[in-house]
Amino acid sequence: MKLLREIIAAIRPLDVDAERGASARLEMLTKPSGSLGYLEDYVRRYAAIRHDSAARFGGGALMVFVGDHGVADAAVSAYPKAVTVEMLRNIGAGGAAISVLARSFSYRLLVTDVGVETDTSSQPLPGVRYRRVGAGTCNFLEGPAMSLEDASRALEIGIETTHEATAGGATLVGVGEMGIGNSTSAAAILCGLSGLEARRLVGHGTGLDDAGWERKVGVVEAALQLHRKSFDDGIQTLAAVGGFEIGAMAGACLAAAANKLPVVIDGFIATAAAAIAEKICPGLSSYMFFGHRSAEGGHSLVLELLGARPILDLGMRLGEGTGAALAMKTIESALALFHGMATFASAGVSGKVE
Amino acid sequence: MKLLREIIAAIRPLDVDAERGASARLEMLTKPSGSLGYLEDYVRRYAAIRHDSAARFGGGALMVFVGDHGVADAAVSAYPKAVTVEMLRNIGAGGAAISVLARSFSYRLLVTDVGVETDTSSQPLPGVRYRRVGAGTCNFLEGPAMSLEDASRALEIGIETTHEATAGGATLVGVGEMGIGNSTSAAAILCGLSGLEARRLVGHGTGLDDAGWERKVGVVEAALQLHRKSFDDGIQTLAAVGGFEIGAMAGACLAAAANKLPVVIDGFIATAAAAIAEKICPGLSSYMFFGHRSAEGGHSLVLELLGARPILDLGMRLGEGTGAALAMKTIESALALFHGMATFASAGVSGKVE
Repeated sequence: MKLLREIIAAIRPLDVDAERGASARLEMLTKPSGSLGYLEDYVRRYAAIRHDSAARFGGGALMVFVGDHGVADAAVSAYPKAVTVEMLRNIGAGGAAISVLARSFSYRLLVTDVGVETDTSSQPLPGVRYRRVGAGTCNFLEGPAMSLEDASRALEIGIETTHEATAGGATLVGVGEMGIGNSTSAAAILCGLSGLEARRLVGHGTGLDDAGWERKVGVVEAALQLHRKSFDDGIQTLAAVGGFEIGAMAGACLAAAANKLPVVIDGFIATAAAAIAEKICPGLSSYMFFGHRSAEGGHSLVLELLGARPILDLGMRLGEGTGAALAMKTIESALALFHGMATFASAGVSGKVE
Repeated sequence: MKLLREIIAAIRPLDVDAERGASARLEMLTKPSGSLGYLEDYVRRYAAIRHDSAARFGGGALMVFVGDHGVADAAVSAYPKAVTVEMLRNIGAGGAAISVLARSFSYRLLVTDVGVETDTSSQPLPGVRYRRVGAGTCNFLEGPAMSLEDASRALEIGIETTHEATAGGATLVGVGEMGIGNSTSAAAILCGLSGLEARRLVGHGTGLDDAGWERKVGVVEAALQLHRKSFDDGIQTLAAVGGFEIGAMAGACLAAAANKLPVVIDGFIATAAAAIAEKICPGLSSYMFFGHRSAEGGHSLVLELLGARPILDLGMRLGEGTGAALAMKTIESALALFHGMATFASAGVSGKVE
């Protein structure tokens, strides 16, 4: 908890002067005022978060956390639990969607096993970091998913990973995840924190049929009832119905803010992590970009509650950080325009008729 | 007209077998079925347009056409007409938004003067191709914007430019424009072809105030009345109220289809060109991707009429092909995923529980 307290204490307000400086330059570029739309907002917020009116870009890093869920035993997923470790291997080996996007965009990919059921650390998978909290969470239908100590440890892993991304020179990070069963955990977190009914937020995950969806709703409702005393607190919520990878993403969000690093949230599950981080440190979401509107369950509704306008809306529901990666590329393009465009003065272009 | 007739005759239906082949591979990739959302649609359509189930990507090209408008004399723009040639220079020199994006994404940029008022061809601007139909169009409040011969010539320039992009190896193209006054021309075209009222489609262009907007609505209404007999025909519509750069973009759309080249339409003005191309050759829009929802005027409404879901929605209203460029990058990312991801079999990942 010491590391977490230090991180929260290190978070500074956004730099309004840097934002103003970026705004002033945006007005000088050879385009009608405001005509780059939200791209201009992204530049301004990036500058404010970075405390850098020049909005310099040093590189992107994607932090993908992978863990298993005890609740997967309640048949809440269309895929078997074994897929978690198989996909961990695939992500590390470069064959998963997020591996391809990271390669395409030249973003550093930090893939971390935070608690996959099958322990491969004795014969490490290529491209995988091992920071295991345990061999998957407990089934939260029978008790808390994890102890408070393990919840803290998960948060710390996210913090440490973000420090590593920062040390590597990244000035923009994204968070994503993989873990069979984790859309059930995310739905429970988001219902618990928002008070919304399970059937409004539960989605079909990787492809549940309607009967499976009803079962999943029942699981979330039971969990909400069992853990109803946990939802006034972010860390207790994480311990009650969360996952190790969700905790790590929440820790990464907190550390990103402390490190003046804009963080791009992926989809439904990463948003649950963002909600926990916001619960731990109210106001934190001003450091976050919501990468895309996921097609999963009630993501639209949650984004609305958060007052967030996602960058992309491509009907994706894959996770792994794929929506975050595409959104990071959009932010990077906005920064490229900011840095690369001529000004009215330098290009000799006439201004508006007054 | 001969070139135009040849192009239209060369357009073949989309290849459903190639689409089916791409679909089959999409199902084999290590992700839940359909979880890449619209990115999967983009791959399938790309394959169908290219007649290539492997959906190979050879490179992108952005075709930006620049021309002046006689109607700008009616004070329909917030910027003086001189800005057209100044921006032509800026685009060619690499300082405009589209120059920056083309460079960032390694897309070929074909910038063509199709009829800027100030003729710079005797001392050619760097990075600019000269295919001038004339020194700007006539004011369409006083008669047709151009002759039918000039309308054909504009279309042909778009066709020839697309052939050049194809010869250079591009397998994905985007169309964009610059020309002070051309959002007035685009609004007149779209109203004329759709029957919608001027005030539903006219926008604030580069930043008109409300009085300027009212004036612009009046100009479009007067043009619709004057040229009401022209709107049953695409080429006559172009001649009556169009622009050289709009004609060239329409020609590019037709040639793209004939060359089995997916074409990404930029914003409001490029959509007017797409509408002319669709009028000339009904069904053509199946070869088009609409790059983004522009913040300009009635673009949302027009997209709805066309049944088109834009790829991006970033509140942009700059033109130049900037929205098309960002959308091309999104399509390219979809193709990278299609080509780079492992299959369930190759990665040893378990399938869905049946």
